[in-house]
Amino acid sequence: MDEADFLGCHQFSLLKNNDILAHTGQGATVLFNSVYSARELWKQLNYREQKHILNKNLQVYTIDATTLANQCGIRGRINNIMQRAFFLLSDLMTPENALQRQKEAITKTYQRKGEKLVNANIAAVEQTEALLFKVQPVEASLNEPTTQPVVAQHAPDFVKKVTAELLQNKGDQLPVSVFPSDGQWPTATSKWEKRDIASFVPQWDSESCTQCNICSLVCPHSAIRVKVIDSKLSLQDAPRSFKTTDYKLRDFHGQKYTLQVSPQDCTGCQLCVEMCPAAHEEIKALQMVARESVSDEQNDNFEYFTQLPELQPIDIKRIDARSSQLLEPLLEFSGACSGCGETPYIKLLTQLYGDHMLIANATGCSSIYGGNLPTTPYTQNRQGQGPAWANSLFEDNAEFGLGMRMAIESEQNIALMTLNSLKDSIPEALFENIVSLINDSSTKGITKQRENVAQLKQLIASQHPMIQYADSLVAKTVWILGGDGWAFDIGYGGLDHVLASDKNINIMVLNNQVYANTGGQQSKATPTGAIAKFASEGKENAGKDLGMPTMMNGNAYVATVAIGANMNQTLKAIQEAESYPGPSLIIAYASCITHGINMSEGIEQQQQLIESGLWPLYRFDPRRIAKGKAALQLDSRPAKESVERFVELQNRFSQLSTRDNESYQLGIASLQSQVEHKQSLLSLLAEWK
Amino acid sequence: MDEADFLGCHQFSLLKNNDILAHTGQGATVLFNSVYSARELWKQLNYREQKHILNKNLQVYTIDATTLANQCGIRGRINNIMQRAFFLLSDLMTPENALQRQKEAITKTYQRKGEKLVNANIAAVEQTEALLFKVQPVEASLNEPTTQPVVAQHAPDFVKKVTAELLQNKGDQLPVSVFPSDGQWPTATSKWEKRDIASFVPQWDSESCTQCNICSLVCPHSAIRVKVIDSKLSLQDAPRSFKTTDYKLRDFHGQKYTLQVSPQDCTGCQLCVEMCPAAHEEIKALQMVARESVSDEQNDNFEYFTQLPELQPIDIKRIDARSSQLLEPLLEFSGACSGCGETPYIKLLTQLYGDHMLIANATGCSSIYGGNLPTTPYTQNRQGQGPAWANSLFEDNAEFGLGMRMAIESEQNIALMTLNSLKDSIPEALFENIVSLINDSSTKGITKQRENVAQLKQLIASQHPMIQYADSLVAKTVWILGGDGWAFDIGYGGLDHVLASDKNINIMVLNNQVYANTGGQQSKATPTGAIAKFASEGKENAGKDLGMPTMMNGNAYVATVAIGANMNQTLKAIQEAESYPGPSLIIAYASCITHGINMSEGIEQQQQLIESGLWPLYRFDPRRIAKGKAALQLDSRPAKESVERFVELQNRFSQLSTRDNESYQLGIASLQSQVEHKQSLLSLLAEWK
Repeated sequence: MDEADFLGCHQFSLLKNNDILAHTGQGATVLFNSVYSARELWKQLNYREQKHILNKNLQVYTIDATTLANQCGIRGRINNIMQRAFFLLSDLMTPENALQRQKEAITKTYQRKGEKLVNANIAAVEQTEALLFKVQPVEASLNEPTTQPVVAQHAPDFVKKVTAELLQNKGDQLPVSVFPSDGQWPTATSKWEKRDIASFVPQWDSESCTQCNICSLVCPHSAIRVKVIDSKLSLQDAPRSFKTTDYKLRDFHGQKYTLQVSPQDCTGCQLCVEMCPAAHEEIKALQMVARESVSDEQNDNFEYFTQLPELQPIDIKRIDARSSQLLEPLLEFSGACSGCGETPYIKLLTQLYGDHMLIANATGCSSIYGGNLPTTPYTQNRQGQGPAWANSLFEDNAEFGLGMRMAIESEQNIALMTLNSLKDSIPEALFENIVSLINDSSTKGITKQRENVAQLKQLIASQHPMIQYADSLVAKTVWILGGDGWAFDIGYGGLDHVLASDKNINIMVLNNQVYANTGGQQSKATPTGAIAKFASEGKENAGKDLGMPTMMNGNAYVATVAIGANMNQTLKAIQEAESYPGPSLIIAYASCITHGINMSEGIEQQQQLIESGLWPLYRFDPRRIAKGKAALQLDSRPAKESVERFVELQNRFSQLSTRDNESYQLGIASLQSQVEHKQSLLSLLAEWK
Repeated sequence: MDEADFLGCHQFSLLKNNDILAHTGQGATVLFNSVYSARELWKQLNYREQKHILNKNLQVYTIDATTLANQCGIRGRINNIMQRAFFLLSDLMTPENALQRQKEAITKTYQRKGEKLVNANIAAVEQTEALLFKVQPVEASLNEPTTQPVVAQHAPDFVKKVTAELLQNKGDQLPVSVFPSDGQWPTATSKWEKRDIASFVPQWDSESCTQCNICSLVCPHSAIRVKVIDSKLSLQDAPRSFKTTDYKLRDFHGQKYTLQVSPQDCTGCQLCVEMCPAAHEEIKALQMVARESVSDEQNDNFEYFTQLPELQPIDIKRIDARSSQLLEPLLEFSGACSGCGETPYIKLLTQLYGDHMLIANATGCSSIYGGNLPTTPYTQNRQGQGPAWANSLFEDNAEFGLGMRMAIESEQNIALMTLNSLKDSIPEALFENIVSLINDSSTKGITKQRENVAQLKQLIASQHPMIQYADSLVAKTVWILGGDGWAFDIGYGGLDHVLASDKNINIMVLNNQVYANTGGQQSKATPTGAIAKFASEGKENAGKDLGMPTMMNGNAYVATVAIGANMNQTLKAIQEAESYPGPSLIIAYASCITHGINMSEGIEQQQQLIESGLWPLYRFDPRRIAKGKAALQLDSRPAKESVERFVELQNRFSQLSTRDNESYQLGIASLQSQVEHKQSLLSLLAEWK
């Protein structure tokens, strides 16, 4: 195992935390994918790697496969390039023979997905040889031996003692005694793992920026953030290159504005740039630039940025898509796919409610990136408040979340009983104020109740049981999260049970219409014609609707959202769901790598999704009935375009057209009739008072 | 255990199969509930009982508690009468003291259910003493020792060797070798267990009978049946008292008609008499008469009746509620409660489709009475055809039924492949006819295909694999049965999955709105205000609707039925569901003892249920859309009466009015607004094309 003749390192940043070259034998060949020239690469290696190369006489090569893949139109897909380079460096076949066989393999592998993909990969392997360079080790220019710690020096003790060990794959050596004995796991640790995986990162032009904050809203990793800064605040201690500009809009006129990227946490998905609203590509306020061209100062800038004061929800008059981004996200730097369409929704929830929020998370993508050890992306604000998160099974997550609400109610009851016993020893106004706000989860209610509780704590002895229960007097919000595999399939029985209850529960279904995390199996949400596992010839029957059946019972709030199509409608739905005193269901369209799309366009495509009629936007609020209004409001217009125009954008559908065009057309026809039938139903229901 | 000082036998017919008096000690007191006078009772006892009484010097008493309970208005509830008799016969308390204490206990126990019930029970215990008689044993009039077998001499071998032993509680002594090794269990065995539990049974007046057959349709135990008899058939060998009359209606004009009760299988529920449509009680064609007044010849008559030729579905031009009863039921004499509201639906299914039917039965009442050993109520016609039945769990029964359909498809495929290999050796017309009818489950299709298969079998060698698969060429129908505990709650996830499929599956939910079999817990189908376990103060939130959410997907046939409210609509829904090539769902209202009603009025009350608007009748057939019609048809009119008028009929609701009238009224108001809201939704959906 430690005597490899050939070693390929496809992601240069992995060298940082992994002693990869330890696995090579004497005289072995090593191939790096890096943006560096052959000369520059030597300098970029640490002392540890340089010593391996010299001691073992390793033959080192480098190729910039990432840039080549980008140029060939297969962004991020470097596998064939690296394979071509391997054959060029090994003597298993003549280069000509290897090229011929590889082209055949590419054709066989990708022809189901279309000719364009085949040609792009063939072009990439044909150009590989010209970009492959040998690296000459220079003993005279050995770097200094480094003993840089895996996590920053100022990281918390737990992170240094446990997380850092896990990050170095040394978890097996940790004694059981270092783990929390009650099963809790600290949050706010992803910030200590600097993955540094982006080859390209966005750069901000403060001049042309309109301060719309869309980049921040859509960023799946919270790696691009904005802040309003009090103009009275001295920024003298800011790093030299830290940029601010005048706040351009009305709400915080007279203050400063800043936008900050964390290059080490960015995954390079490019969503921010694609969504930056400028008439021309050239005048966008964000441009992707090569990671190595970004000064390390940006890391310090980000560190500085996070230390600046944060707004609280109460500080914002009207929270909409734009202003929501002035709030601190309490989900950051998760291990979700680059360009993930789910995390922006959850991040948004944490910005609005993260400081008093419990999350029950179903098995699926969101449970993996939500709690993938060694680090936890859910984090805390400066007061130590943040989402309490736990993951349950596919088959019982809705019930799990219901249990959270019932536990809260039970704790509230104990707190109220304890408070009652203090009735005569605290001011009457305080007592009554606390009682009246016990279920008020509005921004004002939460803020006021926190003040009340602080006052209460000061009035009573530190040994009084009230101290233990006082925080239960502040209202909490429960969100149940999961994908369509959970909500439409395995967990639907429980979901329906919770929806039929009268409990104050919020449910968000992150619907990418497929079991992505387990390998791409079809779910009940998978639309007709889409290819997935167990539907390899395109799904035949109709994808199930979840929103309309739920409306039928009349007791639950229901909404569909698609953040890329209507950001403010998404915000409205979330706020209405949160304030609704019974069960609420939001079904959120989530772009996904399983759709066979360029992920940088995932959010943008949602506009066309809506225009096709395949994802009507609506909000159903039973509170409106008492006002004599229809509960259902339609937030998107009837389809403007044929479904085909959308379907052909996504390889999950379009690959069928080359293989079996008849089935492809049948699928489209079926989708089209589903759209029309559903539209007519929604129009009728919008009259139901 | 075998030295009891006191023994009460509350059901006289239990003596037949149980050596009850073996458990008494010398000089013990024995109390029978029987319709016999003290003198007559001695003669009714078998030699075995008479010998016990003489040898052990038993003190024997009798009381007709059943008649007393009937007279006091607490039909069937003899518990307090028997308790009073016990105290009169024991010296535990003075009779006056015992009476006083028992009255207090009655008040305490029943006051939650209303004053009427309290008074009725008090009246019953007050009259008990006058009706309690001592039986004088007369050694001179000892009966002959009998060795009558438990089951009839002509019963099948399995019934004699296994079922009969189980019936005598001797199952523990059976060797494993007598049980079928593959887990199958023979059907058609309930007919050999003559329970003889009815104190009163119906008697037919052929003159005033209109031959509407409603009595047969509603009979939960198939103990009252009708037949059309070919007038050319000689009935010379009929028992003397076997009655026929001229067939009065058009469809079989010129033939004979007969109606026959099986007194030994009747449970005395009285539904047939209540539903017999006559202007006055006195001129009804059915009257309840005391069981002992019915000559034993009626048992022979029933035996004779069952041997007479049966009609086949193909013989009936138009199958409706009336004519369906001319078909043989293949569910009979189950252990369901007397007056059960579920079994008439299943019996009807077996009359229409029993000869080519597979049933997947969820856990619940229907799984207990459907397969309660030692006997099986599902039976076979003279050709040995009958429902294949199996019970799965609460949580997977829909999937279980889906598996049956997939197994059928798989067997069909094998049969077709085998048939293909024979293509050149059988007539072309036969081959093509068989292929064209493979999925035709219409009466005509089934009949024709059976002829085809018979012809095919004659053409091929008896060793040919086709012999094994040929019967798979005849279409089968799959019915998934279960209650609301399964369909609305525990099994809903799977039910929804099957409904979203495109498989030809029929689902019937026997909805009694509560978990009856497990003890009366509330389900999601339990309506607001109804009292059930876990809803002891009346259910607060709304009962869930199952039909309307299912319509939303647009791919399934959906109907609600209530056999007592609209019999022909029930028939129509069942026939449409069966013929629909995709998934079908019928939600059937089932009257139940848990409703706190007089069960003899259960079916009749369904008329008022419909008038209250609480159970709108509809059929949703997606096939209609292609014809430019709305899929949904409303089969009942908007509510004519307030919900209160219905609710006060059922103790599950009304008992709350005495305990907590405010909650009762709130429940009624909520139900009323649900009815109106649902009605407006249904009216809208009836426009959806």
